[in-house]
Amino acid sequence: MSNEFTHFDAKGDAVMVDVSEKDITERIAEAAGSVSMKPETLAMIARGDHKKGDVLAVARIAGIQGAKKCPDLIPLCHPLMLSSVKLEFQLNEADSKVEIRSRCKLSAQTGVEMEALTAVSVAALTIYDMCKAVDKGMEIGEIRLLSKSGGRSGDWFAEDKAP
Amino acid sequence: MSNEFTHFDAKGDAVMVDVSEKDITERIAEAAGSVSMKPETLAMIARGDHKKGDVLAVARIAGIQGAKKCPDLIPLCHPLMLSSVKLEFQLNEADSKVEIRSRCKLSAQTGVEMEALTAVSVAALTIYDMCKAVDKGMEIGEIRLLSKSGGRSGDWFAEDKAP
Amino acid sequence: MSNEFTHFDAKGDAVMVDVSEKDITERIAEAAGSVSMKPETLAMIARGDHKKGDVLAVARIAGIQGAKKCPDLIPLCHPLMLSSVKLEFQLNEADSKVEIRSRCKLSAQTGVEMEALTAVSVAALTIYDMCKAVDKGMEIGEIRLLSKSGGRSGDWFAEDKAP
Amino acid sequence: MSNEFTHFDAKGDAVMVDVSEKDITERIAEAAGSVSMKPETLAMIARGDHKKGDVLAVARIAGIQGAKKCPDLIPLCHPLMLSSVKLEFQLNEADSKVEIRSRCKLSAQTGVEMEALTAVSVAALTIYDMCKAVDKGMEIGEIRLLSKSGGRSGDWFAEDKAP
Amino acid sequence: MSNEFTHFDAKGDAVMVDVSEKDITERIAEAAGSVSMKPETLAMIARGDHKKGDVLAVARIAGIQGAKKCPDLIPLCHPLMLSSVKLEFQLNEADSKVEIRSRCKLSAQTGVEMEALTAVSVAALTIYDMCKAVDKGMEIGEIRLLSKSGGRSGDWFAEDKAP
Amino acid sequence: MSNEFTHFDAKGDAVMVDVSEKDITERIAEAAGSVSMKPETLAMIARGDHKKGDVLAVARIAGIQGAKKCPDLIPLCHPLMLSSVKLEFQLNEADSKVEIRSRCKLSAQTGVEMEALTAVSVAALTIYDMCKAVDKGMEIGEIRLLSKSGGRSGDWFAEDKAP
Repeated sequence: MSNEFTHFDAKGDAVMVDVSEKDITERIAEAAGSVSMKPETLAMIARGDHKKGDVLAVARIAGIQGAKKCPDLIPLCHPLMLSSVKLEFQLNEADSKVEIRSRCKLSAQTGVEMEALTAVSVAALTIYDMCKAVDKGMEIGEIRLLSKSGGRSGDWFAEDKAP
Repeated sequence: MSNEFTHFDAKGDAVMVDVSEKDITERIAEAAGSVSMKPETLAMIARGDHKKGDVLAVARIAGIQGAKKCPDLIPLCHPLMLSSVKLEFQLNEADSKVEIRSRCKLSAQTGVEMEALTAVSVAALTIYDMCKAVDKGMEIGEIRLLSKSGGRSGDWFAEDKAP
Repeated sequence: MSNEFTHFDAKGDAVMVDVSEKDITERIAEAAGSVSMKPETLAMIARGDHKKGDVLAVARIAGIQGAKKCPDLIPLCHPLMLSSVKLEFQLNEADSKVEIRSRCKLSAQTGVEMEALTAVSVAALTIYDMCKAVDKGMEIGEIRLLSKSGGRSGDWFAEDKAP
Repeated sequence: MSNEFTHFDAKGDAVMVDVSEKDITERIAEAAGSVSMKPETLAMIARGDHKKGDVLAVARIAGIQGAKKCPDLIPLCHPLMLSSVKLEFQLNEADSKVEIRSRCKLSAQTGVEMEALTAVSVAALTIYDMCKAVDKGMEIGEIRLLSKSGGRSGDWFAEDKAP
Repeated sequence: MSNEFTHFDAKGDAVMVDVSEKDITERIAEAAGSVSMKPETLAMIARGDHKKGDVLAVARIAGIQGAKKCPDLIPLCHPLMLSSVKLEFQLNEADSKVEIRSRCKLSAQTGVEMEALTAVSVAALTIYDMCKAVDKGMEIGEIRLLSKSGGRSGDWFAEDKAP
Repeated sequence: MSNEFTHFDAKGDAVMVDVSEKDITERIAEAAGSVSMKPETLAMIARGDHKKGDVLAVARIAGIQGAKKCPDLIPLCHPLMLSSVKLEFQLNEADSKVEIRSRCKLSAQTGVEMEALTAVSVAALTIYDMCKAVDKGMEIGEIRLLSKSGGRSGDWFAEDKAP
């Protein structure tokens, strides 16, 4: 990895980094996160599949839309043309939390990590929004990159995800 | 608190809840979150104040803009006219993380919790973006509401923040 | 009703009409529309409720988000703070179409008709998008205002909806 | 055509479909729609060319901008870089309606049908907005794809448009 | 006027200023600007009224839409609900330039100067865009506030506009 | 250069020009502009570097974000995928103004001039916004293209910038 920030120039001014010399390669990033909540809240989400109101279906759409809004939200992100966005949710009853995973893909000169992380974050915020009437003490956490592939800097895996 | 989700109607269909009967009152919400990282990364951010590139200044702007985009990101949020947004960052060297706090305020028929949480989330994502060239293993976490005031449901405080 | 266009000034130039003298009153608008399709396509949507992929849940979210984007889409629309948006879908098997109805509400100086019509239009486009792999010949139609209430010009009902 | 929805995965969850394996080819789509209105309203629009306020000029700009906003409006649409958007209006006095046609073009891995349909829809909504002070009973309809070309699934024409 | 910047707090950090204690009053702002160009370019715009392509009609729509996007463009601007936006263009043949004026109005806790200036800027950029194929040397200038009224700080007039 | 407007078709109707036949080449554009102000205001900005609030850091972020929003602001602009955006500010004490320069880069079928000009305009508006509490008489001006390279029409330089 680099040992300096790439989003500032030599004078310390923020820049949208010049990626025009980079190759266009297929890039994939996977990210994860979670929303911890009371067991009762998790149980209500679980019942949602059966027509009591599907929290996760709304969060999934919000996460996909959020990935597309990434360059609008993150000041120095390049605009990208995502070729795929996928979100998955797992209800973890043991730890009383919803686990979120995203996977984004595109062919471009720059990576797709921020899109994957933004998809998870917006999905998590949407879950909070939809459940906050019953549980204001929920906590969004564990948002991190799981892996990335493609691009000059090579593949990368979170320590617990190394192949 | 309610014991059912308010964002679905009796048939389980998502709705933007009717708030037209609610009073217009002043509402304040405070939220927090953090970005955990390697000590070296935190040290680089710390040096940023002295003209090596100010990561937190960029994240602060992104967080304020993020609060304004909340109804665009969270499907069932009402459009709101924020009257104040403020973000604060603390470098916690003991735990090697940046701590983020936001405070949002407005006069409206509905609360401003989601704006405060979105401000923290977008600021955290921006910190990740600006530091990812040196540290891809950072983790965004501890995103939660600290307190809210105003509105029919009364004031609320996170357990460790009760007055 | 007026007998001239209000969105142009005396010289014929487009303006965002000055509504500052109007009263703030509660305003409600209802709109409708439909998407005609092959009976097989309608049957596939019907099965969607049972975990084959819920087209209407996605269209509902898109319609609610679309209502919020109305001032961004329609050049001379005023920005508004919607206090409620609701969409309903009915599967009309006799005529092989999905019927869409929306209801928008707010307290403002200007009406909410365009938001209701935009919600229906965006929901219809989303249905088209999600079904186009199986049926490209679908037709979106019958998009119209059903009723409006509130505001200086008084209540209005579509001819077949008069009370 | 496919006999299943492509916007859901095997579990019935919505996804932004992976198009990364598709070829980049030139793609063109044409769509149409109409706004039916009172003859007097149509006559007022007709006079608009002569400096009484040009409804169709505003609707044309709105439609072009609408095409660009398509991935923001339609949840599972891919972001695209349109290389051309064109809208045409025809005043049909016999049937007392404005007829709208759009044509969108790009080189991409996915088609441009939704952009063409969105352009027509937003133009139609803008016509409604600009004329609603004189005619609230207008109806937007007949929004459909006329043809598409390019891409793996080959060319497609509406039944009455086959070459 | 103040003798310090209001968009930074005591520590020098950017904030969206708290306006919640301010009165809601009617506020009006007028701004101006110009686009200088070759006489031939100005002549082409002048002919535009007569169906050769109306540059100013497009710029007017862009300026009105631009005013609405102001809080999205200017990081520390409050979201506002404009009640009126108006743009006027004057062809100044003596100085070979298009003169632009805007007027924005709303009832709010904060002023509408930035909306008026943004309307002028976006209209000017649109004129540049539409004429750049024939004249790349155009210059946008003289963008300034002409007057503002309403609000605690009282009325203000540009020196040459004092009543 | 052309001797007619390219953004209108033969009938004088606005179009998003078809660029699908153009080559994809690397394109660079540089633009400039300034904000004239009282010497005291300029002095306050100059002190900003030393933790009194950094006006130019905020304006730089706004300008970079503004470049990305160009196709949303300028009606007939093509959506583009910028590969680099850079803004520079110079405090000109002799003339009591902030000078702004931008440089945008991408590989595309159409030029990047509007993005460079929009970056400068939004940065200038942001400077105005942040200083308006102390100086409402500031003037934004001298916004112009300095140079462009790449594309069929060849390189272009402002008269005083010719190599």
